[in-house]
Amino acid sequence: MKKRPMTLAEKILATKLKRDYVEPGELVEVPVDLTLANDITAPLAIKIFESTNIGKVFDPEKIVLVMDHFTPNKDIKSAEQVRLCREFARKYKISHYYEGGNCGIEHALLPELGLVGPGDIVIGADSHTCTYGALGAFATGVGSTDLAAAWITGKTWFKVPETIKFVYYGRPKPWITGKDLILYTIGDIGVDGALYKAMEFTGETIKKLSMAERFTMANMAIEAGGKVGLIEPDKITLAYIKNRFKREPVILKADKNAKYIEIREYDVSKIDLLVALPHLPSNVKPVKDLPDKIYIDQVVIGSCTNGRIEDLAIAAKILKNRKVNPNVRCIIIPATPKIYYEALKRGYIRVFIEAGAIVSPPTCGPCLGGHMGILAKGEKAVATTNRNFVGRMGHPESEVYLSGPAVAAASAVLGYIGTPEELGLREED
Amino acid sequence: MKKRPMTLAEKILATKLKRDYVEPGELVEVPVDLTLANDITAPLAIKIFESTNIGKVFDPEKIVLVMDHFTPNKDIKSAEQVRLCREFARKYKISHYYEGGNCGIEHALLPELGLVGPGDIVIGADSHTCTYGALGAFATGVGSTDLAAAWITGKTWFKVPETIKFVYYGRPKPWITGKDLILYTIGDIGVDGALYKAMEFTGETIKKLSMAERFTMANMAIEAGGKVGLIEPDKITLAYIKNRFKREPVILKADKNAKYIEIREYDVSKIDLLVALPHLPSNVKPVKDLPDKIYIDQVVIGSCTNGRIEDLAIAAKILKNRKVNPNVRCIIIPATPKIYYEALKRGYIRVFIEAGAIVSPPTCGPCLGGHMGILAKGEKAVATTNRNFVGRMGHPESEVYLSGPAVAAASAVLGYIGTPEELGLREED
Repeated sequence: MKKRPMTLAEKILATKLKRDYVEPGELVEVPVDLTLANDITAPLAIKIFESTNIGKVFDPEKIVLVMDHFTPNKDIKSAEQVRLCREFARKYKISHYYEGGNCGIEHALLPELGLVGPGDIVIGADSHTCTYGALGAFATGVGSTDLAAAWITGKTWFKVPETIKFVYYGRPKPWITGKDLILYTIGDIGVDGALYKAMEFTGETIKKLSMAERFTMANMAIEAGGKVGLIEPDKITLAYIKNRFKREPVILKADKNAKYIEIREYDVSKIDLLVALPHLPSNVKPVKDLPDKIYIDQVVIGSCTNGRIEDLAIAAKILKNRKVNPNVRCIIIPATPKIYYEALKRGYIRVFIEAGAIVSPPTCGPCLGGHMGILAKGEKAVATTNRNFVGRMGHPESEVYLSGPAVAAASAVLGYIGTPEELGLREED
Repeated sequence: MKKRPMTLAEKILATKLKRDYVEPGELVEVPVDLTLANDITAPLAIKIFESTNIGKVFDPEKIVLVMDHFTPNKDIKSAEQVRLCREFARKYKISHYYEGGNCGIEHALLPELGLVGPGDIVIGADSHTCTYGALGAFATGVGSTDLAAAWITGKTWFKVPETIKFVYYGRPKPWITGKDLILYTIGDIGVDGALYKAMEFTGETIKKLSMAERFTMANMAIEAGGKVGLIEPDKITLAYIKNRFKREPVILKADKNAKYIEIREYDVSKIDLLVALPHLPSNVKPVKDLPDKIYIDQVVIGSCTNGRIEDLAIAAKILKNRKVNPNVRCIIIPATPKIYYEALKRGYIRVFIEAGAIVSPPTCGPCLGGHMGILAKGEKAVATTNRNFVGRMGHPESEVYLSGPAVAAASAVLGYIGTPEELGLREED
């Protein structure tokens, strides 16, 4: 049979199936390389799994349980959820169980530990599982029921998604990061602009992005409705997985003449520092174009979107020798213990504390309105997180403004939503 | 009138009233030097205060509001409580309002900021307000209603308590701290052994205790039912308040022939490292006499009782180059941002993270089952906190074992309740 050109998403699925091609719209059943659940979603999957009385999981090494959402346990209910997961992990000898001092935010932790890599099929009972697409893994969120089924069969099914290609070119302005690129993209296509599509991020700008920024972009694919958000593995990918990823990486690339249902091109040099206004990630505006000063009560720098060391480096650069505005609670959450430790060694934690920020242990915490910085009625927060839906971070009448770390840190000092330039800061300084 | 000899408690009250003496049992109305409330108790006091339509507080400088119990806000309810307090503070120009990055645990924060000092009368809508007795202040917990009344009148009333004198002599064994002395005392007299009494801690051992250990002892006076727990100001007190306390300290001492209803003497050299078993602080046993190994799930080092830099120093000494047992979550909570910062500079935070502990921003958190480490059913914790009542730290079927920082840190490594000696550690090392 003549070989057909494929997009990256198609190629990963076809390769895993040992087939020459897969067709968008086709239903395929694929073996999974890794399955993930957390303290919110695992308990339901466990109940479903146990109700089957199967008595064994397909492969304890391919199950990861990360207790990151409400931990350190915020209440009895969350403590009970964690206990259930811990007992399940012990019963089925699941060694990739993370709780307490070795636990970080799942989507930062798994790549850091080398548990996911190029060419993998990964499903997670968490919508931001798409993060691993940054490594060239077909990774996507599923419900707890699908996850429980995969724990039994080691397989899952997908409808092969069509692919939209996003091509980024041009040199970013100062302080612009992957967060601005993905916010810009979601602003362009809308929160359902890529519904059940594979988003393939490519172009010269992407080639130069750090892994951290790539994770941020892939992470938010779901905010445009994307099934996966993929970036072709390259030198930067290989450097990242070196000494982490234990399996043989499967380096796949999209074919030149692959069929995309749409190709969108962005001149990055024209993108300014952005903020997504309430209550949609697509409600994007350049900070400099905000008509009035938006005064804020809280800043959150962290989450699976922007809690990596590169994000903290930007925050530290801005907060160094400055003070958090007295009307603002600035909560900084390194995404994993390793990131926390690195931030400690580099002196960032000291900078944060000197600035009057609050440094939290790794947790999803406020991002999903879990704990560790919940908003009261009428309060406004700038957050480097991924969703600004109504009530996402607390009271239904509170407001979340999404941004990258530079805008978040600058706003913490200013007391309103602003940019590092307003502090007289230049990125090169 | 002939001057009558007085205990320290009587003398503070008499001095404040400009009288020659007060008599135990007598009702007195005294001006207050400081009033305190937190994010749990202030909202109720505010509602009561506002219902009077008085429209002004007696002295905004003498009102302190500390948002420490459920912060960073654990949920919408706690966020709303904090918002209410913040708006009250703004309305009445209360400058001693602490929230976010400048906020610590109230009973560590107030002495640190120099807001309380010798000879003061302090009331707080929190039972551990008695902590300031370590400075020679008549400080005690009141209900939110009494507090609201004091916000209006600047006064409060007491029944003058009888005094029990506790005399400590002898040299403490290695690793023994004020926490062991107070646990021993409560174990001796019971949780109602000093009901509505002033506890006066004195003797050669007390004279040598650090302020941190004195705070720990006074802090737990309430656990024996004490109205106040007092220590005479001395050189150590004066050194502590120097450059902190802005008002003129009133240095008072008990008269030699003052009338105590009881005097108890303790030979400290005979006290071993202690733990208070569930579910009473008086249920005290030497760790070495525990018949079986008690395996634990969590360790908490922090709280208004033992979250000071001296406590963290002991924990760091024990955790240095060691690892927290994989079955244990070790949560370390510096009591104030200043203590956190000092721990950072001294390298303790690094030691904790290297050991695999979780470092929380300042909060009361798990001590009262608030957040940041709540126990599931059947879980056991060793905590340097002050209460181990049923369900205090979470599920009604969880258990809390109270100890000093040495036992807590050693237990975190061992995985069961033990002492530094079991790790081959000597205090002099």
